[in-house]
Amino acid sequence: MANKIITFGELMLRLAPENYLRFLQANKFQATFGGAEANVAVSLSCYGEDACFVSKLPNHEIGQLAVNSLRQMGVDTTKIVRGGDRVGVYYCEKGASQRPSKVIYDRAYSTIAMAQKSDFDWDSIFEGAKWFHFTGITPALSDSVAEITLEACKKAKEKGITISCDLNFRKKLWDRKKAEQVMTELCKYVDYCIANEEDAKDVFGIEADDTDVYSGKLNKEGYISVAKKLTDKFNFKGVAITLRESKSANDNDWSAMLYTDGEAYFSKKYSIHIVDRVGGGDSFGAGLIYSLLNGFDNQKAIEFAVAASCLKHSIEGDYNYVSVSEVLNLAGGDASGRVQR
Amino acid sequence: MANKIITFGELMLRLAPENYLRFLQANKFQATFGGAEANVAVSLSCYGEDACFVSKLPNHEIGQLAVNSLRQMGVDTTKIVRGGDRVGVYYCEKGASQRPSKVIYDRAYSTIAMAQKSDFDWDSIFEGAKWFHFTGITPALSDSVAEITLEACKKAKEKGITISCDLNFRKKLWDRKKAEQVMTELCKYVDYCIANEEDAKDVFGIEADDTDVYSGKLNKEGYISVAKKLTDKFNFKGVAITLRESKSANDNDWSAMLYTDGEAYFSKKYSIHIVDRVGGGDSFGAGLIYSLLNGFDNQKAIEFAVAASCLKHSIEGDYNYVSVSEVLNLAGGDASGRVQR
Amino acid sequence: MANKIITFGELMLRLAPENYLRFLQANKFQATFGGAEANVAVSLSCYGEDACFVSKLPNHEIGQLAVNSLRQMGVDTTKIVRGGDRVGVYYCEKGASQRPSKVIYDRAYSTIAMAQKSDFDWDSIFEGAKWFHFTGITPALSDSVAEITLEACKKAKEKGITISCDLNFRKKLWDRKKAEQVMTELCKYVDYCIANEEDAKDVFGIEADDTDVYSGKLNKEGYISVAKKLTDKFNFKGVAITLRESKSANDNDWSAMLYTDGEAYFSKKYSIHIVDRVGGGDSFGAGLIYSLLNGFDNQKAIEFAVAASCLKHSIEGDYNYVSVSEVLNLAGGDASGRVQR
Amino acid sequence: MANKIITFGELMLRLAPENYLRFLQANKFQATFGGAEANVAVSLSCYGEDACFVSKLPNHEIGQLAVNSLRQMGVDTTKIVRGGDRVGVYYCEKGASQRPSKVIYDRAYSTIAMAQKSDFDWDSIFEGAKWFHFTGITPALSDSVAEITLEACKKAKEKGITISCDLNFRKKLWDRKKAEQVMTELCKYVDYCIANEEDAKDVFGIEADDTDVYSGKLNKEGYISVAKKLTDKFNFKGVAITLRESKSANDNDWSAMLYTDGEAYFSKKYSIHIVDRVGGGDSFGAGLIYSLLNGFDNQKAIEFAVAASCLKHSIEGDYNYVSVSEVLNLAGGDASGRVQR
Amino acid sequence: MANKIITFGELMLRLAPENYLRFLQANKFQATFGGAEANVAVSLSCYGEDACFVSKLPNHEIGQLAVNSLRQMGVDTTKIVRGGDRVGVYYCEKGASQRPSKVIYDRAYSTIAMAQKSDFDWDSIFEGAKWFHFTGITPALSDSVAEITLEACKKAKEKGITISCDLNFRKKLWDRKKAEQVMTELCKYVDYCIANEEDAKDVFGIEADDTDVYSGKLNKEGYISVAKKLTDKFNFKGVAITLRESKSANDNDWSAMLYTDGEAYFSKKYSIHIVDRVGGGDSFGAGLIYSLLNGFDNQKAIEFAVAASCLKHSIEGDYNYVSVSEVLNLAGGDASGRVQR
Amino acid sequence: MANKIITFGELMLRLAPENYLRFLQANKFQATFGGAEANVAVSLSCYGEDACFVSKLPNHEIGQLAVNSLRQMGVDTTKIVRGGDRVGVYYCEKGASQRPSKVIYDRAYSTIAMAQKSDFDWDSIFEGAKWFHFTGITPALSDSVAEITLEACKKAKEKGITISCDLNFRKKLWDRKKAEQVMTELCKYVDYCIANEEDAKDVFGIEADDTDVYSGKLNKEGYISVAKKLTDKFNFKGVAITLRESKSANDNDWSAMLYTDGEAYFSKKYSIHIVDRVGGGDSFGAGLIYSLLNGFDNQKAIEFAVAASCLKHSIEGDYNYVSVSEVLNLAGGDASGRVQR
Repeated sequence: MANKIITFGELMLRLAPENYLRFLQANKFQATFGGAEANVAVSLSCYGEDACFVSKLPNHEIGQLAVNSLRQMGVDTTKIVRGGDRVGVYYCEKGASQRPSKVIYDRAYSTIAMAQKSDFDWDSIFEGAKWFHFTGITPALSDSVAEITLEACKKAKEKGITISCDLNFRKKLWDRKKAEQVMTELCKYVDYCIANEEDAKDVFGIEADDTDVYSGKLNKEGYISVAKKLTDKFNFKGVAITLRESKSANDNDWSAMLYTDGEAYFSKKYSIHIVDRVGGGDSFGAGLIYSLLNGFDNQKAIEFAVAASCLKHSIEGDYNYVSVSEVLNLAGGDASGRVQR
Repeated sequence: MANKIITFGELMLRLAPENYLRFLQANKFQATFGGAEANVAVSLSCYGEDACFVSKLPNHEIGQLAVNSLRQMGVDTTKIVRGGDRVGVYYCEKGASQRPSKVIYDRAYSTIAMAQKSDFDWDSIFEGAKWFHFTGITPALSDSVAEITLEACKKAKEKGITISCDLNFRKKLWDRKKAEQVMTELCKYVDYCIANEEDAKDVFGIEADDTDVYSGKLNKEGYISVAKKLTDKFNFKGVAITLRESKSANDNDWSAMLYTDGEAYFSKKYSIHIVDRVGGGDSFGAGLIYSLLNGFDNQKAIEFAVAASCLKHSIEGDYNYVSVSEVLNLAGGDASGRVQR
Repeated sequence: MANKIITFGELMLRLAPENYLRFLQANKFQATFGGAEANVAVSLSCYGEDACFVSKLPNHEIGQLAVNSLRQMGVDTTKIVRGGDRVGVYYCEKGASQRPSKVIYDRAYSTIAMAQKSDFDWDSIFEGAKWFHFTGITPALSDSVAEITLEACKKAKEKGITISCDLNFRKKLWDRKKAEQVMTELCKYVDYCIANEEDAKDVFGIEADDTDVYSGKLNKEGYISVAKKLTDKFNFKGVAITLRESKSANDNDWSAMLYTDGEAYFSKKYSIHIVDRVGGGDSFGAGLIYSLLNGFDNQKAIEFAVAASCLKHSIEGDYNYVSVSEVLNLAGGDASGRVQR
Repeated sequence: MANKIITFGELMLRLAPENYLRFLQANKFQATFGGAEANVAVSLSCYGEDACFVSKLPNHEIGQLAVNSLRQMGVDTTKIVRGGDRVGVYYCEKGASQRPSKVIYDRAYSTIAMAQKSDFDWDSIFEGAKWFHFTGITPALSDSVAEITLEACKKAKEKGITISCDLNFRKKLWDRKKAEQVMTELCKYVDYCIANEEDAKDVFGIEADDTDVYSGKLNKEGYISVAKKLTDKFNFKGVAITLRESKSANDNDWSAMLYTDGEAYFSKKYSIHIVDRVGGGDSFGAGLIYSLLNGFDNQKAIEFAVAASCLKHSIEGDYNYVSVSEVLNLAGGDASGRVQR
Repeated sequence: MANKIITFGELMLRLAPENYLRFLQANKFQATFGGAEANVAVSLSCYGEDACFVSKLPNHEIGQLAVNSLRQMGVDTTKIVRGGDRVGVYYCEKGASQRPSKVIYDRAYSTIAMAQKSDFDWDSIFEGAKWFHFTGITPALSDSVAEITLEACKKAKEKGITISCDLNFRKKLWDRKKAEQVMTELCKYVDYCIANEEDAKDVFGIEADDTDVYSGKLNKEGYISVAKKLTDKFNFKGVAITLRESKSANDNDWSAMLYTDGEAYFSKKYSIHIVDRVGGGDSFGAGLIYSLLNGFDNQKAIEFAVAASCLKHSIEGDYNYVSVSEVLNLAGGDASGRVQR
Repeated sequence: MANKIITFGELMLRLAPENYLRFLQANKFQATFGGAEANVAVSLSCYGEDACFVSKLPNHEIGQLAVNSLRQMGVDTTKIVRGGDRVGVYYCEKGASQRPSKVIYDRAYSTIAMAQKSDFDWDSIFEGAKWFHFTGITPALSDSVAEITLEACKKAKEKGITISCDLNFRKKLWDRKKAEQVMTELCKYVDYCIANEEDAKDVFGIEADDTDVYSGKLNKEGYISVAKKLTDKFNFKGVAITLRESKSANDNDWSAMLYTDGEAYFSKKYSIHIVDRVGGGDSFGAGLIYSLLNGFDNQKAIEFAVAASCLKHSIEGDYNYVSVSEVLNLAGGDASGRVQR
């Protein structure tokens, strides 16, 4: 029996030059769609859950194309409000070797950023839902969207729906002060917090000692201390922190920790040869939500979430086109990449 | 010796599905650039003139890509102000047979629409220039751009620079009332007015009798009367009206009239099998400006402009990649399309 | 309020060389999906109806890709049975000028062709449905599918659901004798019959006098007589016959007739410059079903169906990506193909 | 039983922008191969004949790619001498509507142009052959190739092999005077001469009265007189003249005449919507050779050759990928372009 | 002087999404051809041998396209029987990092699987041949193909032709019991056996001790023992075993052993960054056959075969487009990948 | 204030199969442009300098496309002489793993190779210039180009312009003896010499002891001794030597040394995962020229040049599309490749 999960945020048109071409070499763009919360919904739908994405998109064909990208993957799009003019856009150039990937956002004035409280009827949206997920990007879109997010959190809490939030700090959307103020209010309603070390520091000033995120090294104690501080502050049921060690634009190590009930569970670490790392964090969030909804124990939950996001790095685009059995196979130990026939 | 021509307006990223795919079928977009006044500049540069395009574009790579699309064709881009965030976008779906082409604009809040008077130093821009061209789209972008356009017109007039304007009414940018008010003020400075019958009616309420633009028929007297009324109102040196008879999305008849000194000069009419008709009017404008700058007689001028724009319909994208000799060859009568080797 | 329509048949992978390349020149194939009844479902979903496609498809990724192609367009795929091994394939080479298009079927042994009665629970499928549509291709797939179709017809009739059938004779799937025998049984349950002149002759030996389908000419009396004979034989509520005059692979004239209550309603005739004519008949069927479900009068119904299928000819692939307003616009007389912006 | 036919000439790499893009818009080129005599060999191989193409190509991979393009189609490439440095290149831009196609040759200094007599052992090459074909392009490549061609003609004549020559005048390769001198010598050995009206005039100064090749009109008497004059001059067994009426880059009328034994046989005329007209004449030559080798009567021969070349116009690239049955089907009257399934 | 080699098996259409796209993201497929024995034939033809591939393929264009893919590379296709309906298909998704490649077969009911003994005249096929090669896939296609293979082996043995067989166990084609029974009978005729450790175990239950194929480790003694057991059982002249250590979908170590006359020859081991590993084993087989036919000593033979297959991993598609000199260059020690100009 | 730099050489059309396809698999070519000195000009223009490329290119569209590729990047093309017939071509196949990249040149008889002294007016070209750069490829094109290069060097020296030369030995263009003779004469005028170890040996017979360029190892002392010998011979102000350690076609280590005033400055070493290594040396040269023109100290200069060329290896095509800030960022230590948003 599928669980109903609601995610809320922006779905953008992603325009990417082919292969490793730089923007300055582009004369065509791969056109896909993505956005942190939509990515989570697609993943959960691929796992067989009943994922419903809530947003606002224009009535015209580009808006419809965005909706169709979700419908195709089985996401419930009936709660997407239609209207307004702009589909947000982001341009994405893939890095290689020492050259980093580059993202140029063109999402200001999008129809969701300009949405109003009256656009969403949360009572109806949450009917039958078990989980509500959003990220720090959503309230950063605009003051009115921040308010809508707060309203959604309150309504979800009323209804006993579990709430998860990926901090996902984006410095181009808001400054740290604004982020801290808004996220502090929202996190009061959150059960599970997802973050990377930078997020915790950027949003709440919480730091892991002795870790330099740019150095590509990590220490476990530091992460535990961050999770503990977050838990202490917001009384989270769980805090999950992803641990990326970036060796080059092509090669990253990837692992994560789940901290819950005072215990820390560290996953295996994967050395990944990257196809596309955008959406890596979102696929982790989706894996975690799936694990928790399906009663996996803590170690299995973090292994599932990390294996899921490890696989995401091998897939083009924002969406994580993997099945539960593929994730379980990797989490279970087969990372040899042998041909399946 | 090349003539220096200044054009002023917006350059947008044009995103078009491949071939005849509809938006709803697109998973990649051809990425080119276009905009009425930039298109004119490219044409003139292809004819060997010294065309300089004035606008504002962001400093980031997408802005640079726009600039490079003009540099590639030899347009002087040194007067393009750099700054702001958004490159305007338009989505363009190619029609076929009874299915019309469709354009979705996403140009609001572009950096040029939000430009200020202080961004442009017209004294410097007009140095050495002989001609200034803009279209009705430019002042429609925003009030401040309308003001900038007016300032440019005044400055050009002071310096004895010839001014041409293509009325180019866009109902999604402004309403008729606003258009009439702004364009009436600007047209006082204009020497040569370019229009189609719809424009004259939409902007100034001036109509040709007995012509239904949707019927695909035309009457010469009607066009002459429109040109005469426009001339009477604004004391134009010349009025050029393009005459499109749309038989289907693939097939159009195309001709034009130049009205000057009380005489009307009608061009040949071409039956065109369309590759891409966007930019057809702009290529006409460029052909006309070239003709007038190079002292063609009136009949040759209108034939050149129409042949140039006839060729544009056979070319993908907004820009008209044709040379003077190619236009002269067609205007001179060789429309057989025989292979040149 | 959307109407629920059930269609039943095969969905195939369509492999087509790019543009006008011949099979012998292909090194990649456009991969889309199509099948007569699925095409109808997609059209109806694009019109806002609640279209549900019933079939059987394998559980593997190619089967899922087929399902997703429908989900993307909003078709209800929850009644598609999953299992078996093969997705049927058809190779499609686009003709041009005097060179005809070519289709090579590789659909034998597909999982739907090998489906069993027990795969489908028609009581559940028809719940809430108003209309059931199939074509002559479905029962031609195999004896067991013919039986399933008969069962579906009986069940639909019991429940008072309107049934339409497009005769769609395919000589490579069965011979005329077998077709006549099976279709005669099925047509007893059918309310609306859709055909072209060839179909009526091929399946039932019913001919229009004085018409040579290869000559590209037609006579109205002949078509009326075919419709009348069909109606007399099966007591149809209505018979719709499409009238294609093939001038070349690029250019066809297209019109149709609806015969009902003893009256014949002929549509306008469109001269079409073809982008892709596969699915033309299916888009007609969908247009007709939509018209009849929404209470259009007979003349408007046939005009809507023909305009819808006229537009299909301008669209790549099997599916007809058009909206009700686009069809109404064309049916209402605007065939000029002028750019919409 | 297949007939062995030898053709001799240059095979070039053809670099063409995609679709209707102009050279100035190209950032990739379709890479195929073509050349008048190779095109004839491919056609004949597609008809089941044993076609052997003789030339010289470099040993490196680009040379091999050229060889493979012929092997793929079953052409015997064992007589192609390998060595030298350059594969000749031609750049090909497809015209549309009033814009003509454009060909830029880069074939000077190719390895075949620099070939020596000693490269070819005609005794061995002609073993078992029934027909030898070349065009006026081959001797125009260089003086030494002209000599080689003459040697081949003499040897073929000795062996009783039928010789055909397509005049194919290329003004960029040689001037008229040189052409006349060389071709006059070669034509003494030729049995069947293929030409268009321009060729006869350009090479031998033989003109049809009252026909302006640029006007797109033709008169039958004129063509007969040209054929008669050619026959009188060289004692040809037959002269075939293709008749192209170019209405635009997209639309041509196409027909031909075979003059033999004092009688003229005119084919049907086809109105063609062009996909690619390069190689049109070569496909005609191949059709004619096939017809004559297989004992078709004169009217059937010219109908076959014209239908074959009509179909070529619907196919991308130089090669004519059609079968005997496809040609016979069109020659037999089915030009409706109806889908074949 | 080229050696004539006969290979017998199935040639399939390979449909692969572009780059690293998953099946669920595909809207076009790269269309190439491949099959174990055809791949061997192509390799041998690239080495200058006279390779002849025997199979059955339909007469239609998709069958012809398959034939042409071999002709292009110089393979003798004159012994391919034409008839039947289906070209077998396999869908191939390329893996990356921890995500394995995936193959979905759609080869049941292909025309070769349904071929009959009477389709092949082995006396004629083997005329002048020195070597016959097949793999365990061929007899697994169907009982009748197993019989045909047996007949071919008997006939080859009679004629003194050397026979090689790659065990190539495919669990989706048959079960182990059936495989053991059929292969045991066939291997009686085989001179050289090619396998990987899994094959020997899967088909004959022969295992190397202490080696876990999924662990990516290997021990030399184990492989020798497998080879010895195989030799003892079937009296092979030689047994070659490929040794793949799969570290990820991108990175594999690759080496092999040749066991003959009681001695084991181990090759160098290559660390490969994979472009496409399908066909890796086939390219090894071809390299080995070439080595043995050309009298290489045992160490050189295994080095050549491994270097050849190492290069295959850097090439897209099933076919190994490399020359003898390229293989020798790598086998000789230059693995630096420096640009050759 | 931008510095004016003149570079002189050939600009070729680069034809490359897509991705990792071999030449033998190609049916389209990526068409870009490149050439050692043009690549340097593009890099310098991307750094904001006023780079002017001098060459000769045909007047036709392929010549114009070459010019446009430079204009697009802001290079001054007004000194390119137009005329002649051929644009030089080079075919480029990308290697992978143990398979090396392959380049096939087709540049003989290009219009620049056939240029005459009278084509270039060096007085005018050098007006306002600060730097002149050429490579050993330029004088190798032909004797007349060698003379032109010498004339340019003399004129530059007269005007006090700094001269740099990259030895760039190409064995297919000339032999060592000829190279030594010509380069010895030219190097008398050169201030900064750029080379790799092979160049010094190939051109002047100067060797570093104990280094095998094919082994992928290097010793610092050896490089210093080469630089010292070069300096001693020609009295260079500086010698820069790039140090490539080729591990495979995908992975290289890359570093360099600048030797000046008797001191050697070694850069960091980068382990590069290669996208395209063609143009790597040119991007190094451009980085060095920029550093020296902008007064960087010696260590910073070599670090900048190496970081610039490290980034080039991550970019498709010959041109190095990077900005000063991107190079400084990498040279400053951030090689983690983390996404920039």
